[in-house]
Order: sequence, then C-alpha cells, then structure tokens
Amino acid sequence: MNTIQAAVMARAGGGIELRIDEFPAPDLQPGAVLLKTIYSEVCGTDVHLMHGRLDQVPYPIIPGHVSVGKIEEIAGAVTDIHGRRFRSGDTVTFLDVHETCNACWHCLVAKASTRCPHRKVYGITYSAREGLLGGWSQRIYLKPGVKIVALPEGLTAEDFIAGGCGAPTGLHAVERAAVRLNDFVVVQGGGPVGLSAALFSLLGGAGAVVVVDPAPSRITAARTLGVDFTVDAASPAERISAVMDLTGGRGADVTIEASGNPGAVVEGLQMTRDNGTYAIAGQYTDAGDMTLNPHRHINKKHIDIRGVWGTDFSHLYKAVQLMARHMDRYPLKRMISKVYPLKEAEAALSDVEHRRVVKAVIAPNQDR
Amino acid sequence: MNTIQAAVMARAGGGIELRIDEFPAPDLQPGAVLLKTIYSEVCGTDVHLMHGRLDQVPYPIIPGHVSVGKIEEIAGAVTDIHGRRFRSGDTVTFLDVHETCNACWHCLVAKASTRCPHRKVYGITYSAREGLLGGWSQRIYLKPGVKIVALPEGLTAEDFIAGGCGAPTGLHAVERAAVRLNDFVVVQGGGPVGLSAALFSLLGGAGAVVVVDPAPSRITAARTLGVDFTVDAASPAERISAVMDLTGGRGADVTIEASGNPGAVVEGLQMTRDNGTYAIAGQYTDAGDMTLNPHRHINKKHIDIRGVWGTDFSHLYKAVQLMARHMDRYPLKRMISKVYPLKEAEAALSDVEHRRVVKAVIAPNQDR
Amino acid sequence: MNTIQAAVMARAGGGIELRIDEFPAPDLQPGAVLLKTIYSEVCGTDVHLMHGRLDQVPYPIIPGHVSVGKIEEIAGAVTDIHGRRFRSGDTVTFLDVHETCNACWHCLVAKASTRCPHRKVYGITYSAREGLLGGWSQRIYLKPGVKIVALPEGLTAEDFIAGGCGAPTGLHAVERAAVRLNDFVVVQGGGPVGLSAALFSLLGGAGAVVVVDPAPSRITAARTLGVDFTVDAASPAERISAVMDLTGGRGADVTIEASGNPGAVVEGLQMTRDNGTYAIAGQYTDAGDMTLNPHRHINKKHIDIRGVWGTDFSHLYKAVQLMARHMDRYPLKRMISKVYPLKEAEAALSDVEHRRVVKAVIAPNQDR
Amino acid sequence: MNTIQAAVMARAGGGIELRIDEFPAPDLQPGAVLLKTIYSEVCGTDVHLMHGRLDQVPYPIIPGHVSVGKIEEIAGAVTDIHGRRFRSGDTVTFLDVHETCNACWHCLVAKASTRCPHRKVYGITYSAREGLLGGWSQRIYLKPGVKIVALPEGLTAEDFIAGGCGAPTGLHAVERAAVRLNDFVVVQGGGPVGLSAALFSLLGGAGAVVVVDPAPSRITAARTLGVDFTVDAASPAERISAVMDLTGGRGADVTIEASGNPGAVVEGLQMTRDNGTYAIAGQYTDAGDMTLNPHRHINKKHIDIRGVWGTDFSHLYKAVQLMARHMDRYPLKRMISKVYPLKEAEAALSDVEHRRVVKAVIAPNQDR
Repeated sequence: MNTIQAAVMARAGGGIELRIDEFPAPDLQPGAVLLKTIYSEVCGTDVHLMHGRLDQVPYPIIPGHVSVGKIEEIAGAVTDIHGRRFRSGDTVTFLDVHETCNACWHCLVAKASTRCPHRKVYGITYSAREGLLGGWSQRIYLKPGVKIVALPEGLTAEDFIAGGCGAPTGLHAVERAAVRLNDFVVVQGGGPVGLSAALFSLLGGAGAVVVVDPAPSRITAARTLGVDFTVDAASPAERISAVMDLTGGRGADVTIEASGNPGAVVEGLQMTRDNGTYAIAGQYTDAGDMTLNPHRHINKKHIDIRGVWGTDFSHLYKAVQLMARHMDRYPLKRMISKVYPLKEAEAALSDVEHRRVVKAVIAPNQDR
Repeated sequence: MNTIQAAVMARAGGGIELRIDEFPAPDLQPGAVLLKTIYSEVCGTDVHLMHGRLDQVPYPIIPGHVSVGKIEEIAGAVTDIHGRRFRSGDTVTFLDVHETCNACWHCLVAKASTRCPHRKVYGITYSAREGLLGGWSQRIYLKPGVKIVALPEGLTAEDFIAGGCGAPTGLHAVERAAVRLNDFVVVQGGGPVGLSAALFSLLGGAGAVVVVDPAPSRITAARTLGVDFTVDAASPAERISAVMDLTGGRGADVTIEASGNPGAVVEGLQMTRDNGTYAIAGQYTDAGDMTLNPHRHINKKHIDIRGVWGTDFSHLYKAVQLMARHMDRYPLKRMISKVYPLKEAEAALSDVEHRRVVKAVIAPNQDR
Repeated sequence: MNTIQAAVMARAGGGIELRIDEFPAPDLQPGAVLLKTIYSEVCGTDVHLMHGRLDQVPYPIIPGHVSVGKIEEIAGAVTDIHGRRFRSGDTVTFLDVHETCNACWHCLVAKASTRCPHRKVYGITYSAREGLLGGWSQRIYLKPGVKIVALPEGLTAEDFIAGGCGAPTGLHAVERAAVRLNDFVVVQGGGPVGLSAALFSLLGGAGAVVVVDPAPSRITAARTLGVDFTVDAASPAERISAVMDLTGGRGADVTIEASGNPGAVVEGLQMTRDNGTYAIAGQYTDAGDMTLNPHRHINKKHIDIRGVWGTDFSHLYKAVQLMARHMDRYPLKRMISKVYPLKEAEAALSDVEHRRVVKAVIAPNQDR
Repeated sequence: MNTIQAAVMARAGGGIELRIDEFPAPDLQPGAVLLKTIYSEVCGTDVHLMHGRLDQVPYPIIPGHVSVGKIEEIAGAVTDIHGRRFRSGDTVTFLDVHETCNACWHCLVAKASTRCPHRKVYGITYSAREGLLGGWSQRIYLKPGVKIVALPEGLTAEDFIAGGCGAPTGLHAVERAAVRLNDFVVVQGGGPVGLSAALFSLLGGAGAVVVVDPAPSRITAARTLGVDFTVDAASPAERISAVMDLTGGRGADVTIEASGNPGAVVEGLQMTRDNGTYAIAGQYTDAGDMTLNPHRHINKKHIDIRGVWGTDFSHLYKAVQLMARHMDRYPLKRMISKVYPLKEAEAALSDVEHRRVVKAVIAPNQDR
C-alpha cells in the first residue's frame, strides 16, 4: 500500500469541514506499530469536534479515538503489560491517551493521571500533520509506548467496537460511583456511555438497574441489555417521580449521569437517596450552566458527587476482559446501529448528532 | 429550686417571639439526668428558628442544642460509653441528637444514621410542651438514653462551649473531606463551624490552612487560631484568584464550605484542584439556588463533592477529646465574643444574625 | 399446641449431650413474635458447641442460629425496616445477633458493632432457661426488637436455608475483601461460607472464581454454582502452584479464607498477589496456631489482610435480596445435602463434623 | 575534581567487604545531574547488605540509598514536578527508586508501582560497575528521569538526613495505617522508621502516640520527639499489658510495626483493638518465621493488617514538606547520633548493627 486514506477535519472558512486526504505510508520509529484499522468509533465527542466546541484542538486532525485493527507492521519487539510480544496479524486495540508524563505533580503526588497536563489523545489532540494519529484512517500509527491490548479469544473486533469508548468510560464511572452488591442504580442517558455503565452495573451485582432516556431507540437498546427498568417520560418531574416510585420513595443508591445535558445534574441529584452517590460522566463539553439548591440537593442529602474525567489504561484493559467474559449474556454486537465506509463519515456524524443511531462505527478499509 | 426559667420561642401573631417562661421542676424517669446548665450556645440555626425557616419545628420550643452543665440529679445508674457511672456534680455535655432508631433502613442498611427519619434534636425538634428539652434553660432534662460525655480533665465548660456545635460539625466536615497530611485546605467562612474545621485541619496535619471570609472579626478569629493565610477580599473573583496564587495556580486539595451562602458553592469548586475534594457543610437552611457549570466545575475537574449533614456521637466525643488534648496550642476561650444572661437571649440572637459577634453563649444561671 | 419440642445441648458428665426437651408455649411480651420453625441450619459452629470449644456458652442451649419459619403470633405491631407490618403466616428469617447496645464505645465511636460486648446470638449465647432462643425447636421466640426480614417473593424457605448462615457471612467476607469488577478471586474452602463467598464474588463481577478444597463433595458443589476453576490437590504446595499457574504466576487479586484450618492462612497468603487482599472468614474457633514469615508473606507483598467477624443486619438483608434476584442462575436448593427431623439432630451434627454432607438442615416440625 | 572516592561493598572470600575505591568523573547524558554529596544515610538495610541478606544484589555496589547533596552539574534543562528548573548549587534530595516502568500490569492495572518488577534502587540494586549510583560517594550520578526534590527554605541538609529514609517510609506506614484524628497509635520500634512514624502520627492528630522499644537510647529519642508515652519493658507480655493499661483494656486503634523483629508481629496484633489497623513496615529482610493464632489474633479481632513495602515519590515529597513545616516543633537534627567520614563507613555500619546509635550518617566530602 503506497498511500493511505484518512478522513480529516480541518478549519475551512468560518467552520470545520471533513474531507478524505491521502497520506504516504509512514516509516516506523523503533517501538512503533502500524495498525490496519478494522473499525473506529463515531462518538458524541466527534460531533463536538466538528462544531469546534473543544479547546486547544490542533486542526487539521484525523478523528477517531477508540479503534480496533490488525497489526500490520512492528518496529522491533513490542510487548503487552504481561511481557508477551505482539505479532503481525494480532487483533488489538490501544489506549487513545498517550504521553501522560509520570513526572509532574498530578501524576506523582496527586496520582490523578487523567489530569496530567501533558497527556495527548489520539483522534482529538494530535494534529494530522504529526501523522496517522486518529482512527478514521486506513492505517493508525501507534507511537512507541502507546499501550496496546490484544482482544481476548472469542471477543471479535465487532464486539469490542460495540462497546467502544463508552466501555472504558462507563467502567470508570461505575468504579468512581463504587457500585456495590445489591445497589439500586439509575443511569441517566442510554447512549454508549450510559449503556456501558448499565452493563457494568449489572455485572457488578447491582440489585436493580434503571436506564432513563426519553429516546425510544435508546430505551430499546437498554432493554436488549436486560436492565430491570426503563424510564422514558418526557419531563424531569415525571422521571424523578418514576424513580422515587421504583425505590419506595427513597431514591437510588447510585445514579450515574451519562446524558450530556446540564439539566440532568439537578434531576439526577433528586433521583438519588440521602447519603447515596452521584457520578457525573456525561458532561464532556460545555453545554451550559444549570441551577441547583445546595441545601436541598447536596448538603441535607449528605450526598457524594463524583466527577469522572477520562480513562486510564486499567479501564480499557478491564473493560475488554469483562466484555470477553460475559459476551454470551450480553448481545453487544446488537448495540451497533450502522457501519459506515470512510467516505460516509460525514453522514455518520450527522446520524449521531441527531440521535438517529445509538452507535455508529467507521470501517475505513471497507468500501460500503 | 421550685421553678425553672427557660427562654421559649413561640409562634405569635404572624411571626415568632422569644419570651422567658417558668417551668416546674421535672420528675425523672429511670435513666434520666437533670443538668444545671452552665452555658448553651447561640448559633446560626437559632436565628433561622427565630425566622421560621426550618420545616417541622414544633413551636413552642426551648432553643439551645449544644450545651454544657453540671449534673444535679440522676435517676438510677447512668454510665458513659466506657461503662463509667456518672455522679452528681460532673461537668458534662451531651449529643443533642436523640431517638435515632437503629431499626430502619437508613440506620441498618445504609448506615447513614444522620438521615434516620426518627431522630430528634434538643433545642430544635422537641416542643417545650414535652419538657426542658433545650439548652436556654436553667435546667435541661436528659431523657433516658441521651448520650452524655464528661469533659476531660483540664477542659473547662468555657473551653468546650467556645467550640460549641461548630466543633463536632467542623470535625465531621474534616472527616468527610478526608483531610490528609500535607493537604492544602481552604475553609470558606470563619464562623464557628469554619473555625472548627480550620482547627481540626491544622490538627490533622494539613500542609496549609486558609480561611476565606470578608468579615474582619472572623479574619481576626482565624488568625488567633494560627491559620496560615486569610483571604478577605470582597469579590468572588478576587477570592478565587487569591487561592489560586497561594496554590501555584492549582487550587486547594480540599475545600470546606462553612459559609451558609449558596453562591459559595460555585466559588469553592473553582478554588479546588482537579481531583480534589469539596465538602459542603454550611448550607443548613434553604438560602436559595445557585448556578454552576457541570462541565467546567465538576466533570472536567474529576472532583469529589460531599454533603455533610448533622453529626453523630463519634464527632462530639472526638471533638471533646481533641480540644482537651490541644488546649495549650489553641486559645479556644478567646473565640467567645460575649456571654449573655437568659433575659438577653434576644439580643444574643440579633448579635449573631448581624455578625456583630463570632460566638455568643447563653449562661442561664447567671444574672448578667 | 401446648408443648413445644426442642433439641437441647447440655453439660452432662464430662462432656455435652444433645436431648429433646419439652417446653411450654410462651407468653409474648409486647413487640415479640412467635415463629413456627420451617428449617434451622446445622453449621460448623454447632459442632464446636457440641465439643465445648466456644467460650462463655450458657449451657443448656437450644442450638440453631440461622433459621426460617412462619409467623404464628405477633404481640402488637411489629414492622420491618421499611415500616411494613408483619402478619401471621409471613415466611421470615431474622438476624441471630441481638442486643447490640448502640451505646458503647464499640458501637458509637469505633462503629464496629460486631464487636459490641453486649451482643447476644440466638442458638449460641442465650440459655435454654431464658426461652426458645434457638432454631432447633418447633417454635422460636423472637424477642422485641429482633430484626426480622420477610423472604421476597419467589425465594422459598428451602432456597434461603440453602444459603443459611453461610450467606450473610460469605457476603460480609466479599464486602470486606472489596471484590471488584474483573478481580481474580480464590476461595479456600467449599463449605457453606466458602460457597456463598464464591457465589457473591461471581455476582459482584469477579473476572474468575476458584474454589480450593480437597473434599470431592465440595468440589462438586462448587461446580454446581458455576465457578471458573476448582483446585482439589492434597498438598498446600500443589494448591499454591495451581493458583499461580491460573494467574500467570502472579497470584489472586483477592483470596477469601473459609476453611477453618489454621494452616490455610499461610497457604492463602502465598496464593495472593502483591498488593492484593486476603480476607480471613473461616477461623471461627481456636483450632490452633500457624507459622508464617512476616517478611515474605506480608511486608514484602504489600498485602492487605482483613479479619471478618460476625455479621450485621445489612449482610442478612442484602444476602436475602441477592439470592431472590439471582435464583434462576444459581441452583441454591441443590446445595442442601440432607434434611433431618429434630430427633436426628445428633446424626446431622455427626454428618457435618465428618464432612459427609455439604449442608445439613433441621426441620423441627417434620417427622422425617 | 579528577577522581571521586566512594565506599564499595564487594563480595570477597566467603563474605562481603567494604573498601574505598576511586572512580573517574563521569560524563553526563542529556538530562542527568551530578550531585556533590553532603550526607548519605546508614540504615538497617545497609547492615543486611553487608551480610548478604538481600536477594539479587549486584555486588560490587556503592551503598547509600537516601542522600542529600548540592547540584554540581546539569546536562540540559532538568525540572522539578512543578516545572521549575534546577540550578547548580541547589540543595536537593532524590527518590532512590528509579526505572519503575509505567508499562506493566503492576504499574498500570494494579496501580502498585512499589511492586513493579523493573524498579531499581540507588545504593541497593545498581552495581558500582554501572556508575556512581549510591550515596556513600563524593559524587552521585542522577540518571535522566531520576526524581529530584529541592529542600524547601529553612530545611537544611542536616535536618533532612535526620529523617532520612525513615521519613518517607514512616509516612508511607502512617498513610497505609490511615491514622485519623484522635486515634491511639502504638509504634513498635524506636529506630529511624519508627520515630518517623511516631512523628507523622503526632502531626496527623493522633489522640496519643506510644513508642515501644526496650533500647534506652531509642526511648530517649522518642521522648525528644514528644510522644505521649514510652514502653521499654523487656518482655512481650509486659509490653502488651502496658499498652492495654494505657488504652483502658481495649488496645490501640492503630499499631505500626517498625522493629524488624518477626516476633513483634504477634505482639503488635495483641496490642491492637478489635477492628483496629496493624501496619507492618519493619520486616524488610527475612529475619525468620513467627507463630500466631489466626482465630484469636486476626479473625475474631476483625482486624486490618497492611504490609508496607517501599515508597514512591509522593512519600518523599510530602515528608520533605512536612519536615520543613514543623521543624520548630520537632528537633529533628537531634535525632542524628553521629556523622562519619567515608573512611569510617565500616565503623558506622557496626554502630548501627549493634544499636550503639539511633541514626548514623556518612559525610563523604568531610575528612572527619
């Protein structure tokens, strides 16, 4: 292969445009890996990127942060976290976050590596001028040190991408929320993050899992996963009331916000019991302010609220293992609404933006 | 003593009035204790009670939830948590919260006893018709089972009341905030709760403690305690900027809200570092809503927010021990601004409401 | 019914004997409940009681701490933790631990209620002279305040007793061990506690669960539950080696000891990974000392070890809910090896002692 | 300076000998730093190294893991964790642990970096053939990436080395033991680790701190720090009994083992209260087995035991800040028993081994 096609988001005129560019095949530095992309995800962040809503994005970029592919080339010996060497032909995914420095105050003293100021993210904060550093491309260049995971036996590329970036994010939310055996869990939002949070809550032994979302396609997806209840009422008051009824008037032990809607926060606090836990995982871009009452919604409730930002390698690694282990119980593949070839990336973005699909994936080496 | 004088808050006309009533000396049930009051505190909650801002208060009430006195009479054998019998003449305080049921879901499964629906509070949710169940009274009737603590040797009634209800509440806030060795701690509000939170943060090995309050009298009190820095700027932006400067642009590891002002919440979140902890302990009545941005102030910060409601016996017990242990380092007594006889209780309330004093106490058996 | 039959363990000669005694039907104090026993468990503790291995047991006693029955009589209004009134005919179980004082240092300051010095246990630390306070009896007298749980719909008395006292103990062990999603969990011992710990680890999302036990009947039971692996090697070295092989040479994330054998502790520490967690739940009586190397087995491993003593109401309550929720996945009933009438209680004890059965239950109102 | 003198431990005959060797001045790789040593510590580990008691030590080595010096040369721009550039002449210390990989399962999934198999330690697991990688040398070569901390204003090299490697280890022990406000803390062993653990417990607000050690010089040192009580009884039974008396028969909330004696473990467990915490930080080499009773000493006590291995950068960083903050309250310098020139390193080792000194330090650039 002499040239490689990739979708590129670039500033153009007053906005941002998506085009297909050709790139030369890269030379690999020692320790680098070249991946032939099987699937790359289209997620809400990509819609925000298209609208220029994130700060400090070095356009032009190749979008696509969570991807899965086959190793085509390896420069030297590259091993996984267990010290096993990767081989050409292995089906792998990788942590999109790279260059966490392990040398600053956040990494070493606060031990909050997802807030390291040096971290970069494939498909978001690398420029297309720096190389094939995003997933909407026929090949992805994995820089030396990028953390790679082989898919366990039985977990296909299609199964994995069905979880996509929602899987590690959802797992991180469930860990931060500290879901425990028999907890009553409410998840606000039935998109990829919310569905993953619901799935991992079920796997973690929740006493009941409720998905709250007014969109019928997402309610259907939640039911496919086997959640205990769904709430699709149109108004916040009705939704709060439905959760209170399901919990004997007490509220959920744990509520996980995965909606992206600022107003969901005050709604979710009211769905959560006194001394319960509320994890906020869906506010990934600035979608505006919201109003709450600190006496009634926080102080008097003696509640815990936990922001959930980013993921680290442990979330990706565990999410992959858990999906592989429980594939027979959960029809992950059925979460994928539609697969798009590279040239239809713009249509994929539009379908995600308008919630015409639950989960869209790009297959850069497929023609249709 | 045949009759006992107590200050009574009662509904009258359209509002609430404070008057001095006479009560007969009570007969003691087995296990009850009669206390001759030395001091009872006047706190912000009493101002709210005077304005009818709390729900479900069974007026008329005898205010005064945290008090200290000498045991005058004991009906039978009453012991402390170590099994030691109390004697007449002992100087003691007691947990104002009583009747936590130890039989409901909140007590037994959630283990959130401060949210038990059966709990009652001396000076707040007992009616004066039920007896001498508040501290602004010459005698206090301790029902059987009320949890009593003798002041340790060397801790006088005056030292104890200087901490007052702020001491267990401040300790609870510091515990919920999980202040650790070398943490940079900001306390919003230099009233009794805030000063106690600052004191216990110092005792817990904080790397630095900052008290933020625009009131000069509170800044002076904070300096008396020996906090590292004070911030008295008039505007939120200046206060946030001062904290950022003190923390090298990063924000505090832990911020404790003890101000009672709803707007303090969004301000305090901005004073706290990414992945830090924000404890909300000052929003004890509904003082209105506030606006925040869930993306910038919570989710992206990967922050923990913890509501702090009420106290249990452990907070009172430990606060008393810690005050006794560290009395020589901290001039607690100097925190008391003024002592009022019973008949000046109304003036005390007014002084607290208008922040003319940091700490006011009633001495029901003193004439002036 | 005028007289009630119960099995009584009494000191006799140099040892302890088991006999069937007749008791008059009791009068109920207000708040008390009389239960017609359906099943009561025979557990390892009962064997220890028969041999006089526990301290401060007030023989004669009626054994049987975990039981299930139908309410026959209620003295007044008795409610569950949600405030719902119990009715005659309800199938219920109850927390065997009673009289935890909620007034001592352990209860109030340490919040370690399972170490309250005032707690009493049905079937163990109540004397038969005090009443029908054990489960190997046709009726059980539930004193006022005993904490009662109705079996949820669909969970039969047989299902419940199959979990028996192993269920809350196993759940407590899993909570103390803090099993998390994807953890590799080893359980030492396939008796009732171990099987419950294995079950709750599976429910809590363990990445793999291994049961280690040399007894074939217990290995069979573990397989029935669907654990991932079983290890039945005869020697400690072989068992450790098997676990190391299964974990890529690293050891388990979490190991739960439920064997009762002192030597299991040093073996289990070696099965656990560096910085893993080792919960000790099986050492309920003094079965002797064991030798370990604090450098190699604890300090250098940077390991956490957690003793697990007793249970509180939350463990019983949650265990019942979790069994009801997951009954279709786990054939609990099949864990019961044999049901004995009251007059065969001695045979049941002998079968348990010699591990001829995994789980034995007494049915005091059945003839055979 | 053309040649550099260093003390070298080498295998010789059947044992290990200590000699003074000369080394050429090294060339610095980019990012490396050359330190002119002020002090380097002699600790118990060095005695173990001299006796060949640690595995996998690449003799010959230059001992000395915790050191302080002045920067003499820097190859390029080297910054601290806040991004501030170091300058020649800065007085600094550094984390002795290096090459933690941040790429293996222990680092990334277990987040147990002190158990990373790739980590190396200055003065212990680097060979003298690899360079000046130990502190008993006139110069120390800090490889690129070694984590360096400047001493804060007011903390001298002498103050710092008085804490030495005991300071981060003691802080780690206190963090693992989770000492909280008002906890009763017992420290077993009054050597450098134990004294630091006692100091940080005092700083963390312990209700009382007891140091247990039979050696009079260590008891004196503990008193200098201002601990509440010391116990110097010769027999374990007397020591346990002394602690029980001091705690009203209950035992300590937290006990920290820093003695190096295997038998201390069973003794310390008996000094700790039910549901208390026991941290084991002193078993750094294999000094033999010990016997305990898992029923009485662990399970029935419902106790937490935590092994404490190694330190990471956060412990060193925080220990330095805390020492600087509290220097006026604690006479750290007085903890140093004796300063030795390089040529007397062998005498220093002997004095430490025979407990003739509490703390010995080498000053490689002093003649005496």
